[in-house]
Amino acid sequence: MHVRDLKPQKNGLKLADLESTGFQATELARAAGVTKSMLADEGCTVFFAFTSNMMASGLRGLFIDMAKRRLFDAVVIAGGALDHDFIRAFEEYDVGSFCEDDVLLHKKSVNRLGNIRVPNERYVSFEKRVRPVLEGLYRRKRSVSPREIASELGGFLSGRRSFLAECAKNKIPVFCPGITDSALGLQIYFVKQDHRDFCVDVTADMNELGTLVLSAKRTGALVLGGGISKHHTIAANLLRGGLDYAVYVTTASEFDGSLSGAAASEAKSWGKVAEKGTTATVHADASIAFPLIHAGLGGASR
Amino acid sequence: MHVRDLKPQKNGLKLADLESTGFQATELARAAGVTKSMLADEGCTVFFAFTSNMMASGLRGLFIDMAKRRLFDAVVIAGGALDHDFIRAFEEYDVGSFCEDDVLLHKKSVNRLGNIRVPNERYVSFEKRVRPVLEGLYRRKRSVSPREIASELGGFLSGRRSFLAECAKNKIPVFCPGITDSALGLQIYFVKQDHRDFCVDVTADMNELGTLVLSAKRTGALVLGGGISKHHTIAANLLRGGLDYAVYVTTASEFDGSLSGAAASEAKSWGKVAEKGTTATVHADASIAFPLIHAGLGGASR
Amino acid sequence: MHVRDLKPQKNGLKLADLESTGFQATELARAAGVTKSMLADEGCTVFFAFTSNMMASGLRGLFIDMAKRRLFDAVVIAGGALDHDFIRAFEEYDVGSFCEDDVLLHKKSVNRLGNIRVPNERYVSFEKRVRPVLEGLYRRKRSVSPREIASELGGFLSGRRSFLAECAKNKIPVFCPGITDSALGLQIYFVKQDHRDFCVDVTADMNELGTLVLSAKRTGALVLGGGISKHHTIAANLLRGGLDYAVYVTTASEFDGSLSGAAASEAKSWGKVAEKGTTATVHADASIAFPLIHAGLGGASR
Amino acid sequence: MHVRDLKPQKNGLKLADLESTGFQATELARAAGVTKSMLADEGCTVFFAFTSNMMASGLRGLFIDMAKRRLFDAVVIAGGALDHDFIRAFEEYDVGSFCEDDVLLHKKSVNRLGNIRVPNERYVSFEKRVRPVLEGLYRRKRSVSPREIASELGGFLSGRRSFLAECAKNKIPVFCPGITDSALGLQIYFVKQDHRDFCVDVTADMNELGTLVLSAKRTGALVLGGGISKHHTIAANLLRGGLDYAVYVTTASEFDGSLSGAAASEAKSWGKVAEKGTTATVHADASIAFPLIHAGLGGASR
Repeated sequence: MHVRDLKPQKNGLKLADLESTGFQATELARAAGVTKSMLADEGCTVFFAFTSNMMASGLRGLFIDMAKRRLFDAVVIAGGALDHDFIRAFEEYDVGSFCEDDVLLHKKSVNRLGNIRVPNERYVSFEKRVRPVLEGLYRRKRSVSPREIASELGGFLSGRRSFLAECAKNKIPVFCPGITDSALGLQIYFVKQDHRDFCVDVTADMNELGTLVLSAKRTGALVLGGGISKHHTIAANLLRGGLDYAVYVTTASEFDGSLSGAAASEAKSWGKVAEKGTTATVHADASIAFPLIHAGLGGASR
Repeated sequence: MHVRDLKPQKNGLKLADLESTGFQATELARAAGVTKSMLADEGCTVFFAFTSNMMASGLRGLFIDMAKRRLFDAVVIAGGALDHDFIRAFEEYDVGSFCEDDVLLHKKSVNRLGNIRVPNERYVSFEKRVRPVLEGLYRRKRSVSPREIASELGGFLSGRRSFLAECAKNKIPVFCPGITDSALGLQIYFVKQDHRDFCVDVTADMNELGTLVLSAKRTGALVLGGGISKHHTIAANLLRGGLDYAVYVTTASEFDGSLSGAAASEAKSWGKVAEKGTTATVHADASIAFPLIHAGLGGASR
Repeated sequence: MHVRDLKPQKNGLKLADLESTGFQATELARAAGVTKSMLADEGCTVFFAFTSNMMASGLRGLFIDMAKRRLFDAVVIAGGALDHDFIRAFEEYDVGSFCEDDVLLHKKSVNRLGNIRVPNERYVSFEKRVRPVLEGLYRRKRSVSPREIASELGGFLSGRRSFLAECAKNKIPVFCPGITDSALGLQIYFVKQDHRDFCVDVTADMNELGTLVLSAKRTGALVLGGGISKHHTIAANLLRGGLDYAVYVTTASEFDGSLSGAAASEAKSWGKVAEKGTTATVHADASIAFPLIHAGLGGASR
Repeated sequence: MHVRDLKPQKNGLKLADLESTGFQATELARAAGVTKSMLADEGCTVFFAFTSNMMASGLRGLFIDMAKRRLFDAVVIAGGALDHDFIRAFEEYDVGSFCEDDVLLHKKSVNRLGNIRVPNERYVSFEKRVRPVLEGLYRRKRSVSPREIASELGGFLSGRRSFLAECAKNKIPVFCPGITDSALGLQIYFVKQDHRDFCVDVTADMNELGTLVLSAKRTGALVLGGGISKHHTIAANLLRGGLDYAVYVTTASEFDGSLSGAAASEAKSWGKVAEKGTTATVHADASIAFPLIHAGLGGASR
């Protein structure tokens, strides 16, 4: 394919034009193509993973849309994503700046997440709302799994605009292996202070995740960012010889040997991605890259 | 402003929606806004700077479009950008991959520029075409400036699809302080072998650049990437107390103290950007970010 | 302080000289200084966090040394760090290259971790050795916490060169909130297949971690890399109004709003670092930066 | 080679230990090894390139040391490096912070370069000192090359602690293809206001650089950072079929297709590095990495 000069666009940017642009524009168009292929593959079980901060951003709108359209079969996230979805089902976050006087923000009780401001009062409201949900769960069951907690939260949020609510409604499991590392985890800790026999058994989800992977004809993963959500998604697919499709959007670098920065090809050595797996890696902040990938999906449904 | 959940888009992505998304999406929307403001400001002399590799990519199409619409008043680039514009006015580059066997490519006489492939034969054709142009210039003038060379090339390319041709046609000066660091430079060196009195006087452009800066009511710069094109653009504006508008799109980091990664605010300490200058910095590959900024300009003209 | 020209060194590099060098050299010297201060502060409870890949590298030797000298009071890591310490207590990893044919490596059963090669057979041995340990633990206790598992592994590794062994010996708790996301997690899953009542209760450690934080006069954290180990460490310190000392070594960027790239100042807005907390952030791969910081500690003990 | 656990060091860090550490520590040790090899190769013409900001840092001390020991045969730098060496031969820069109020700094007439502060008064002194040097040069010669200017400055600085002085003394050519992009360039511009026939002919150095490359048995390059100094160094070696040794220390990324981030292998496709050339790329800020590489050179001389 020749490099083609981009033409001025009247109605926003077309993904198709980016493929022949070169550099990350090309990789982005490829990532959109691989994503479309995996969604169009009826025999493919699709995993969706992203980092917690993204749930605090406008990307949440696209995540909710995808959940509504059942574009994925399972979600793997870190604990903070549960916090942000829950809070934002009720209240707003604000756009700020990357350069702030953080000590002053603290005096004003405003938490900073890059250029997003989260008034600390949001967490106070969160505590009030989520504690009864956890108490209710405890009354029904002494030992629960992270997926069950996510599902319980989703049920509670039913009727509100929420990612967890849509996942619960559509019976899409939400896995969260590091659930206690979150504001929710702090509330679980408080509940446990009162109820010593309350237990979050993280092994309970492994059977479900394992079955999902092992019973799939093919598997694919859309992974935005790094950390535990990325690794848990690809590592689970070791059980079946690796993912058939893998799309990464990342700001991390490969040179430090970290999993967060590891390219999709590295995963092939481990068998986390199949030798013949189709992969794409986009080096970009997901807040810019993912809306373009999402727009490229058009009216895809499964 | 609240963080707003993005809504699924039917007709590509709208920049306006990105502003309330958070993270780099917000910064991108702000950059587009500052760019629109500087273009809409009739008293503003607009500088446009970018790195050579971008001229090898599809971004060249948007650069040509902007030159046609006279959206900027001066260009500052490195030598390689002259090479790529000239070659691509006649022949194609190809889209390849970031992971190649570079020794094998060399055996096949294919040069790699990230995921863009430039057959080495292109440079052979370049040599044949550009040498007579330089010889012709020499016959008229013993000592020439980089701007004059760029203008001469633009004249030669007249009638072809070319950035230099559009700039020449619209009398937009193209400054190139490091011109010998390029394939063109190599040809200049060969011409000089035959004509010892051929001279490229880089100081000759300083007067023109200085006058442009000093006579402006206001100045603004759109800077894609780092290096000499970035620094020369902002440093020239020291003469008048700094840029009134500055938009950076960068993949470089601030932590190493390099100019390439320096944020727009750092330039304020130097007076390269005015204390009250309006600035925006987007951390992204320009091949993704700039098409969005460009699309946001709509039918702007000056 | 003036920038001082570095002098040629005969006997390796001196940290003290880096402070007046500028750029990240200065930040590294500052990080070493803050680390020394927190270790010298008798009333300070010191947390140590790092990413899993580092345990696969030579850094493990320094981590073991620090555990022997009891230079920290608690460890927060991800599951993979347990895997690597356990395996390397018995067998070797190899140094390779960042550019490999990953499909070929897979055919040879070699897993790649950046430029480190882990023969897949290591994981087979790991399975054989660790399963009985987990079975033994199960026989004594139906529900265990990650810290208890880490301690059990440490006991098993007693007498071998091992980080977990040194931590167990010195009664330093090792917290691992995302423990199932690891090869160990896979073995836990297999054990659970046989023993449905085996449970890993991640909430069980929260009380211990909470007590540690709440009973401390002062707290400090040395955080290498990002992800769950970084966040869990700083978030736990919310309970007491934030860390008094925080040192980050990171390759992640701030611009995407992720926790991994968030600077120490951002943590002040949340109260994860105290308003008056002393902080330092070094932008570097820990494999280069940490040996220098460690060398700077000299014979420090606590 | 096995990954080896680092041992605690009493007398600073030993490079040799880093080789078996993995990740960038390994790459750094390899870079030191390639650097030693090229310096030990008597038939190798060694090029040294670095970015301007580094001359503002403590690295300058090591650069001066290497010039004294004639460890390289030619230097390729950007204009700013001339400024900083000249100024610092007389006056001091200061260590500051990456987070400053840049508007306030401007009001105080302090320029920021990452975490280095350059009082603006330094540039006033620079102007006073350098103008007569340029005037003197003009009186002797109407048309000068950047190398001649660098040599003239070096002669003027003779007796002072200065990189240019050592290079001039040892007859090491200092190439500077983008010389007008600097504070020196501004002074050249002022001189030209008075003397219209003053000319800086950038093509004049190409013959000397070309001869150096073409007459070498072998060539090697130590390249710190990116931009024009990196490209000019490797591109010049196209003339002879590429560098035999190339060591890069970089903070730039490959993904945007820029020359600054291009790995040494990419240069092989172009013939800028020979197919069998020995290369190493370290991803790190040079202020940390280069002192280690330099320390590894020991008492090497040529």
